Amino acid sequence: MYQLIRELYPICRSITGNGFRRSLQILKLHIPLQVHEVPSGTPVFDWTVPKEWNITDAYIKDKNGQRIVDFRQSNLHVVNYSMPINKKRMRLSELKEHLFTLPDHPDWIPYRTSYYKESWGFCLSQNLLDDLTDDEYEVCIDASLQDGHLTYGEYYIAGEISDEILISCHACHPSLCNDNLSGVAIATFLAQYLSSQALRYSYRFLFIPGTIGSITWLSKNQGQTAKIKHGLVLSGLGDNGPCTYKKSRRGDADIDKVMRHVLQHSGKRYNIIDFFPYGYDERQYCSPGFNLPIGCFMRTPHGQYSEYHTSADNLDFVKPEALAESWRCCLTALNIIENNRIYLNQNPYCEPQLGRRNLYRAIGGEGGDKNAELALLWVLNLSDGNNSLLDIAERSTLEFELIHVAAKALYKHGLLKEV
Amino acid sequence: MYQLIRELYPICRSITGNGFRRSLQILKLHIPLQVHEVPSGTPVFDWTVPKEWNITDAYIKDKNGQRIVDFRQSNLHVVNYSMPINKKRMRLSELKEHLFTLPDHPDWIPYRTSYYKESWGFCLSQNLLDDLTDDEYEVCIDASLQDGHLTYGEYYIAGEISDEILISCHACHPSLCNDNLSGVAIATFLAQYLSSQALRYSYRFLFIPGTIGSITWLSKNQGQTAKIKHGLVLSGLGDNGPCTYKKSRRGDADIDKVMRHVLQHSGKRYNIIDFFPYGYDERQYCSPGFNLPIGCFMRTPHGQYSEYHTSADNLDFVKPEALAESWRCCLTALNIIENNRIYLNQNPYCEPQLGRRNLYRAIGGEGGDKNAELALLWVLNLSDGNNSLLDIAERSTLEFELIHVAAKALYKHGLLKEV
Amino acid sequence: MYQLIRELYPICRSITGNGFRRSLQILKLHIPLQVHEVPSGTPVFDWTVPKEWNITDAYIKDKNGQRIVDFRQSNLHVVNYSMPINKKRMRLSELKEHLFTLPDHPDWIPYRTSYYKESWGFCLSQNLLDDLTDDEYEVCIDASLQDGHLTYGEYYIAGEISDEILISCHACHPSLCNDNLSGVAIATFLAQYLSSQALRYSYRFLFIPGTIGSITWLSKNQGQTAKIKHGLVLSGLGDNGPCTYKKSRRGDADIDKVMRHVLQHSGKRYNIIDFFPYGYDERQYCSPGFNLPIGCFMRTPHGQYSEYHTSADNLDFVKPEALAESWRCCLTALNIIENNRIYLNQNPYCEPQLGRRNLYRAIGGEGGDKNAELALLWVLNLSDGNNSLLDIAERSTLEFELIHVAAKALYKHGLLKEV
Repeated sequence: MYQLIRELYPICRSITGNGFRRSLQILKLHIPLQVHEVPSGTPVFDWTVPKEWNITDAYIKDKNGQRIVDFRQSNLHVVNYSMPINKKRMRLSELKEHLFTLPDHPDWIPYRTSYYKESWGFCLSQNLLDDLTDDEYEVCIDASLQDGHLTYGEYYIAGEISDEILISCHACHPSLCNDNLSGVAIATFLAQYLSSQALRYSYRFLFIPGTIGSITWLSKNQGQTAKIKHGLVLSGLGDNGPCTYKKSRRGDADIDKVMRHVLQHSGKRYNIIDFFPYGYDERQYCSPGFNLPIGCFMRTPHGQYSEYHTSADNLDFVKPEALAESWRCCLTALNIIENNRIYLNQNPYCEPQLGRRNLYRAIGGEGGDKNAELALLWVLNLSDGNNSLLDIAERSTLEFELIHVAAKALYKHGLLKEV
Repeated sequence: MYQLIRELYPICRSITGNGFRRSLQILKLHIPLQVHEVPSGTPVFDWTVPKEWNITDAYIKDKNGQRIVDFRQSNLHVVNYSMPINKKRMRLSELKEHLFTLPDHPDWIPYRTSYYKESWGFCLSQNLLDDLTDDEYEVCIDASLQDGHLTYGEYYIAGEISDEILISCHACHPSLCNDNLSGVAIATFLAQYLSSQALRYSYRFLFIPGTIGSITWLSKNQGQTAKIKHGLVLSGLGDNGPCTYKKSRRGDADIDKVMRHVLQHSGKRYNIIDFFPYGYDERQYCSPGFNLPIGCFMRTPHGQYSEYHTSADNLDFVKPEALAESWRCCLTALNIIENNRIYLNQNPYCEPQLGRRNLYRAIGGEGGDKNAELALLWVLNLSDGNNSLLDIAERSTLEFELIHVAAKALYKHGLLKEV
Repeated sequence: MYQLIRELYPICRSITGNGFRRSLQILKLHIPLQVHEVPSGTPVFDWTVPKEWNITDAYIKDKNGQRIVDFRQSNLHVVNYSMPINKKRMRLSELKEHLFTLPDHPDWIPYRTSYYKESWGFCLSQNLLDDLTDDEYEVCIDASLQDGHLTYGEYYIAGEISDEILISCHACHPSLCNDNLSGVAIATFLAQYLSSQALRYSYRFLFIPGTIGSITWLSKNQGQTAKIKHGLVLSGLGDNGPCTYKKSRRGDADIDKVMRHVLQHSGKRYNIIDFFPYGYDERQYCSPGFNLPIGCFMRTPHGQYSEYHTSADNLDFVKPEALAESWRCCLTALNIIENNRIYLNQNPYCEPQLGRRNLYRAIGGEGGDKNAELALLWVLNLSDGNNSLLDIAERSTLEFELIHVAAKALYKHGLLKEV
């Protein structure tokens, strides 16, 4: 995953354009993505697919013709979606109205966008800004903003049933690693892994530009969203912070219970936060018309680490171990969803005699795996048709997998039937 | 308000009689109160309107003819509703059975009543009692207890709809400032203020004797109580303690949510306590047959400050700033009730594009009032027909007014419709 | 109760056999128990009534013919349900596979059973084991395991209504005092006490072998369990630890509320724990097919004190004061259940005038029993047909008995009617 991030890092992505396309081509080396192209001007609910933005070069030159600010060094230098400009001489005072810095982090370049307002600008370090002393500078942004397409990637894995699990990540940011190449990499490797498994649910992976991408996908697939039974938006999963799960708007959807269970049993610090209508594409998935059971899985939430949306969100900021742990949490969660059934105890009057079935140690008072034994008793006691295995895990405070293993053993002995 | 309290303070009020009438006349200088007179003997539910009590003078004279205890100095000296007595010579031992003091506060005079048991008595300071050394005293209470009327004041302000908000305060205590001239003053000035406003709800203000007053009013208006959608009993609102809201019997009425919201966002310490069937007229409004959505707003609860029902509940004990803050809380609460509507997002599928409506800052990453922006998103996200603006404020933890302003802006742009 | 425990202590009980029978005969001196005998081999749900086990003698002799381990000294020395064995010479190495000790408590003898696996063994102190140095020992268990009966005791007290309260205790352990002669003694004296009282509910007391006893009873009485409205499993009620109540599987049954109320108002430390499908016969009563409203009342839970299932659970370990307190808690709980009715306030509009009925102090401001007065007001306020007296006690935080006394007084004055 870290290698994939390294490969994608230098590309200048935006919500449309060739950077996004090139990134999808790299993902296609791992999973057989379907690439969609939606023409500029297409109405998508209250929005319109924007013009396509592409950029070749951009710079600010001083009086000696030296590139002081150079797009080729960092694609963050140009405000994303900047209009083209080419001026041999611009007074510093005029130029400064188009320059953005981070005074609190004088070495870092901020990341800025101007998607829906025609404008242009440069982002640079405060130190560089302080060094600008010439009266006039040459300013050039060799970009184009014209009718084209919005591009996104989709990968569908058919499972046993048509009910779907949606995994969505935004892939529109340029050279930012945690936000959201981490999410892109985890989604890619989850998809690759799942494609080789026997699956109950069908899975849909989306690699989309933030906001306009989910709006476009929802607009084109409005009739299909009822199939989505669970989902996760993946973003910012590579930093060192504790895992954070932001609940779906419903707050009590299965995915909310599953993620809480996973994090509670992770043995690590974690945070679970309530839904709020700000953040990533869960804003659209959880708009009141859809209200989908989709939460957002991240580590340190957006805006709560100073590297967020700056040049410091780079390859050093993302840790392979954090990626691995995030990936494991996703997999554990999906494993729970896949195996979370409701069973009916076939022997509901008193306990069945587990001892004679060798499901239970025979001599009272002897040692043995207390929790495995308790798991058997919990599954029998609560399998009255009202409790799923996850419900049983939650009430017993045992880990889902222990409950799942117990249920499989009881099922094998004919003591459970699936509802 | 403090000036009004000062004016009302010297009058000897009781649950009936001329002191109560005179007090209502003073309130009529501020609001066009309707004064009701209910004859003694009128049955009101399980009770009967009592005889009318009036008092002219009362004293205890020593052997030198000196007034040792003098009603003209403090009307607390006479047990409220004392029977007339006139005895030239009474042995101290006999007299003492009719004397009440506060040994823990030897300077203070207690306030006592004997409404429903024919009796007489004097209240005095412990110090004064200790000085009584004569064998015999002259004792006189020049009072009358005879058929007459129970008097109360009512002021109705018609709003757009006939649904009512009831504001009730007891006005039957003699020279006690916090309990309850503070409530009387706040109710009066709320009524005066609201009478000049455009109102959705109709408002009813009651200035009544405690217990028997609310029983009488409820008895005469039993058929009308269904119109009362929210209400507050106001009492003890001038002391220095933190605001206290005692919930309605329902516990989850709108007024309970409103008052919690107001106090949570007041920036001050406060207490919210559950309903209990003791206290002020909420006891009657919240009796099981009525179970009205009426709570009680106070500062330090009755009985929890030592000045309560003593001569120390005087003009010094009530603070103008406390009165002002209590008044503001009431007004904020009424403002929420007036504006708490349920809207329906007209664009429920994904977010509407706020940027192109100038409802939203156009350039991503720029500063701006984060909370105002969040308020827009919360209103859109939760306006699914199930959530009132107050519900949205509560879930978002934003202040109601911010949510209200956002809803007005969205409504203006056609993005919301009222349910 | 302590005397009864002392009498029962030496008997070698098991889940079947003459030790159990002899114990029931002793209980019959206190209460007219009905003794049931169920033949070995009888199918009871998923189980079968086991063969009957009886033991006469058992020992391990050294080369000098000395009894090193002697059943006559402690019946814990033999693994309960051991098969007979009689070997003049057994090598120590072979014998050791049948010896059980408690290395952490080298003086104590453990208690072990082998009900459902044919096997034999001895329990002894670690110190004794360490002293075994001979190469060979004589080993004898003079026991029989053959078709016979499972025995249990039942005592039914008919009350005014046929709805039942079930009190169940396991009586199958040999010389162990807290587990569960304490429960047996308390159940016996509760039964004796109640048999002389006028009762609303009918009561059923069960003295059964653990697990197989409750399964057998439930199997034979499956059609009658709907009559059981409340119940308690009594066990481990004589140790010094705080009272513990383990909730029924339902978690919100009346008995759960009652026991919480009793313990909250006991003035002592206590624990309330959620149901889990391990422990005593509540496992069977709360199996999903029955799901009876039965909790378990104990002091320190099984397995949480080191004396548990060892020779240290002896007459010293059980304290008369602890027994007495446990007994009082049971009685208070049963008293609440007996008296917990729902009343309807006959005067629901405003408060009735309690003063003129002498239900209430007449002079405002005077002393008096505040809580008794509050209890009257709470009962009136909440007796709207939805709240039982226990609900009222809980909401008011007053003790049930205070509420009950208030209700009786109001009922006497015609202010309440039973629903």
